Amino acid sequence: MGYKVAADGGALAESTRQKIETRIWLQVLALESTIFAKLNGALLGQFDLSVAKFEFLAQVDRYPEGVSLGQISSNLKVSSGNVSGLVRRLLIDDLITKTMSPDDRRSFIVRFSPKGSDVFARANRLHAATLAACFAEIPDDELEQSLARLRSLHARVRGHHDD
Amino acid sequence: MGYKVAADGGALAESTRQKIETRIWLQVLALESTIFAKLNGALLGQFDLSVAKFEFLAQVDRYPEGVSLGQISSNLKVSSGNVSGLVRRLLIDDLITKTMSPDDRRSFIVRFSPKGSDVFARANRLHAATLAACFAEIPDDELEQSLARLRSLHARVRGHHDD
Repeated sequence: MGYKVAADGGALAESTRQKIETRIWLQVLALESTIFAKLNGALLGQFDLSVAKFEFLAQVDRYPEGVSLGQISSNLKVSSGNVSGLVRRLLIDDLITKTMSPDDRRSFIVRFSPKGSDVFARANRLHAATLAACFAEIPDDELEQSLARLRSLHARVRGHHDD
Repeated sequence: MGYKVAADGGALAESTRQKIETRIWLQVLALESTIFAKLNGALLGQFDLSVAKFEFLAQVDRYPEGVSLGQISSNLKVSSGNVSGLVRRLLIDDLITKTMSPDDRRSFIVRFSPKGSDVFARANRLHAATLAACFAEIPDDELEQSLARLRSLHARVRGHHDD
């Protein structure tokens, strides 16, 4: 009375599935940490800019007319406390300017300083070059498939449990 | 003298490839942050345990005979300062014990306290259940392909620039 499930058709045992789920999470963490370390090293080394500062400046770059701190905080999904700390340090670095919003006097608008605009443009090229080096060994079609796979994974993870 | 590259055969323009690389990085960040938030929320809510504390305890669980702080720091790839902070808080929570190493009096060995062993076993089930919920919509074969894709991506990112 042998019972056999085809290797490619049978459902995974729950414990096997659980191992794969844990490994996916550990791989996501490892991938994030490896790329983050390369970006952080490059940006700190050449521009004394952490990834956190760079991402803040990338938000400023998205809004040439200026952007409120609330908008940046919401886009970056970081707390307003963290945003305040970044603003303080970027002001000290003379990379941004901060002015009162003409529409709402309790709100502040940030823009690039001339120095900030120049530093971001160069840091942005280094950021792209560092990512290009990270992915240099991956052929075009595989790169596109990786993006599609990550998007699908994220959509499914986010879709579930959105309560 | 028209020149045409087949859609599936032509190389990507550099700017297109650069966009895909940036999107992959943003997807990795988003995926990490979404899963992290779900795990952190669940563990904090039920066990007052951050993901950082959980990962420390998972290392303690790997070594039933006890493990040195240096080993944990190296496995988790976090600084010894961060590990010291975690140890201090886990001692206050009464989840671990810390004793001098019999082999090296400058080194400390940590083990679970009875409470820690119990809390970790339950938190570990919650961690697995939270990941299972994250990935619940993904069929087995897609889950396996996702893991393979992430591993390949990480191997190639890590392989390059390992200088």
